[in-house]
Amino acid sequence: MSWTLARRAARLEPSTIREILKVTERPGIISLAGGLPAAEGFPVQAMAEACARVLRDTPHEALQYAASEGFAPLREWVAAEMAAQGLQADASQVLITTGSQQGLDLVGKVLIDPDSAVAVESPTYLGALQAFSPYEARFVSVDGDDEGPLPAALDAARGARFLYLLPNFQNPSGRCLSAARRLALAARAQALGLPVVEDNPYGDLWFDQPPPPPLTATLGDAAVYLGSFSKVLAPGLRLGYLIAPKLLYPKLLQAKQAADLHTPGFNQRVVHEVIKDGFLRQHVPTIRARYKAQRDAMRTALEQHLPPGCRYTVPEGGMFFWVELPGALDATALLARAVDAGVAYVPGTAFYAGGGHANTLRLSFVTVPPERIAQGVAALGAVLAQALQQVPQQAQP
Amino acid sequence: MSWTLARRAARLEPSTIREILKVTERPGIISLAGGLPAAEGFPVQAMAEACARVLRDTPHEALQYAASEGFAPLREWVAAEMAAQGLQADASQVLITTGSQQGLDLVGKVLIDPDSAVAVESPTYLGALQAFSPYEARFVSVDGDDEGPLPAALDAARGARFLYLLPNFQNPSGRCLSAARRLALAARAQALGLPVVEDNPYGDLWFDQPPPPPLTATLGDAAVYLGSFSKVLAPGLRLGYLIAPKLLYPKLLQAKQAADLHTPGFNQRVVHEVIKDGFLRQHVPTIRARYKAQRDAMRTALEQHLPPGCRYTVPEGGMFFWVELPGALDATALLARAVDAGVAYVPGTAFYAGGGHANTLRLSFVTVPPERIAQGVAALGAVLAQALQQVPQQAQP
Repeated sequence: MSWTLARRAARLEPSTIREILKVTERPGIISLAGGLPAAEGFPVQAMAEACARVLRDTPHEALQYAASEGFAPLREWVAAEMAAQGLQADASQVLITTGSQQGLDLVGKVLIDPDSAVAVESPTYLGALQAFSPYEARFVSVDGDDEGPLPAALDAARGARFLYLLPNFQNPSGRCLSAARRLALAARAQALGLPVVEDNPYGDLWFDQPPPPPLTATLGDAAVYLGSFSKVLAPGLRLGYLIAPKLLYPKLLQAKQAADLHTPGFNQRVVHEVIKDGFLRQHVPTIRARYKAQRDAMRTALEQHLPPGCRYTVPEGGMFFWVELPGALDATALLARAVDAGVAYVPGTAFYAGGGHANTLRLSFVTVPPERIAQGVAALGAVLAQALQQVPQQAQP
Repeated sequence: MSWTLARRAARLEPSTIREILKVTERPGIISLAGGLPAAEGFPVQAMAEACARVLRDTPHEALQYAASEGFAPLREWVAAEMAAQGLQADASQVLITTGSQQGLDLVGKVLIDPDSAVAVESPTYLGALQAFSPYEARFVSVDGDDEGPLPAALDAARGARFLYLLPNFQNPSGRCLSAARRLALAARAQALGLPVVEDNPYGDLWFDQPPPPPLTATLGDAAVYLGSFSKVLAPGLRLGYLIAPKLLYPKLLQAKQAADLHTPGFNQRVVHEVIKDGFLRQHVPTIRARYKAQRDAMRTALEQHLPPGCRYTVPEGGMFFWVELPGALDATALLARAVDAGVAYVPGTAFYAGGGHANTLRLSFVTVPPERIAQGVAALGAVLAQALQQVPQQAQP
């Protein structure tokens, strides 16, 4: 072949999760591996009515080329919504993106040079690693505890292009950063001159109380904020947004133009039509209630079926439990056995920029109904218990 | 600001055309500057029915996360359609993209290193320059004539990562490569080991006869082919595709995953629903007829109103006339005067990788009705005639 690949292409790799999901889509498997929201929560009727209205009232505008910045009323909606959450931003700082994955790609394109340090949580969102990797980032993992990354650990990230944080019900760990930790991290980042890229796809999916205000509310021009409609409406529309400092916005906008000219205007108008009169205030609570019940079902099942030595915290929102197995177990190696037993999960190692942590795994509680969650976790518990029995005694922790 | 920009960000610049379009959107201006298809040709009713059917029959699949490769039946449709045009490709080689602009971005991401040579036509599509520039391409302009780039001129592009070609009714020049030129270019490119990226957004918009077969039909694995639904359906859906050699496909797919996970599944299903039973065979001829009538109106107006010394060829498809003014005139400098006279165009210099060619301009005939085309061209002719009178005699060619 006469093609010569760019050096960055060596950093593009098949998504291990997508490869795993292919295996686990065999019929009969209870898949706790997915990262998909529950399709039962999609507002199909509202969408259908909005499509009809948009194509009746503004067909030419909706189907024509449109502004790269995004549909103005949707940008204004985002700015107002953010203000209600304590983040003051002007609509002119809002850039509508083709899913928040595109926001990550644009941030990488504009900010990462080959060998630039990028600080990430440990574990972190795999999609962010995949977005930043082709720009040849060098990842610096920031140590943390159940409340979030440790402020003192940021010192190791001095000089990084930015710190990437997913503070609310993180994928994969389910972790939500405490209010105190957010403030401490913001202060430390500011002291170090370390900008923050704050990603918030799950913040609306809280069960008992909303998460603390975003770090961007404190950091202002030292942060880029990413949001998404994928979890509160539907991911198949590919609609996200970012809020950028005024000095950074033009470069992100130009990168957006180069990437896909603009996010589909039809989708933007349909979503705005769905949400403009407060639809999400009725709709999102129904998703929260569904996910909370399923979270509870998984908690009960984990309490019942996981063998001793497994560690997890109960997520207060989002979509995932994160389980640390006894150190002698390897979640990747055990996956085939679990699938044979009828249950699938995602091994945790792919979520670590530096790999390792073979004894971790992610379980989603949102796409499988409660009775199947119980069944799946029971099968997983049995596989783990059996594996633990096979571990030579001296290797057990 | 504590942000450090990536080096490539210096190559991101405001789109001069978008800046121009803002000026020319003043009420009362006859804009021949746009690159937009005519909104009257959008199949609004078919779209509305397809949206309703997709949300009735497969709402969860349409609104859920989907495969990065694209919607399988749409990929199969593309492969079958291409086969009918002489390009044999398997559906597994089709990647659905968020507009064909994204195809350009992915090609750049996977193939261009800093200072890689990329060969382009002279002039070439501005959006391609914008997609490739941030990857720090070094452009090599290939000389040509009315039939296309000159095969012998490809020698200057030896060692380039690829040759980017827009063979059918090019934006901006309107040029369509002859069949003989395609074969000669393909042979020369193969001899040089120079891969080709073939972009075909306008090929279906022919007026009297379809263009010759794509170069990719000859080049096979030495070419990537890009297509789009923007001109035959509607651009606001942002739906394009690329066809890649099997060895290159995985890297483009991984770049696609990193860029936006997948193109909106809802849009893909709606478009497939619209086109699957042969809709385009009825619909596209109506667009052709409309554009041909407007092309004729512009031709007549140009014959009547352009002062002597202006050169243009009559496009046999697509959306644009390309005009070369007498060498002493500067289309950028004259734009303000034209706008004052009530007409707008796009100065041609931005379409040249190396700049220059100040005496060129692009006129679109698709969004303005025939009587307004005549009016606009008359106004333009008057501005040009006046400017020519003001040119000192010795400076005239």
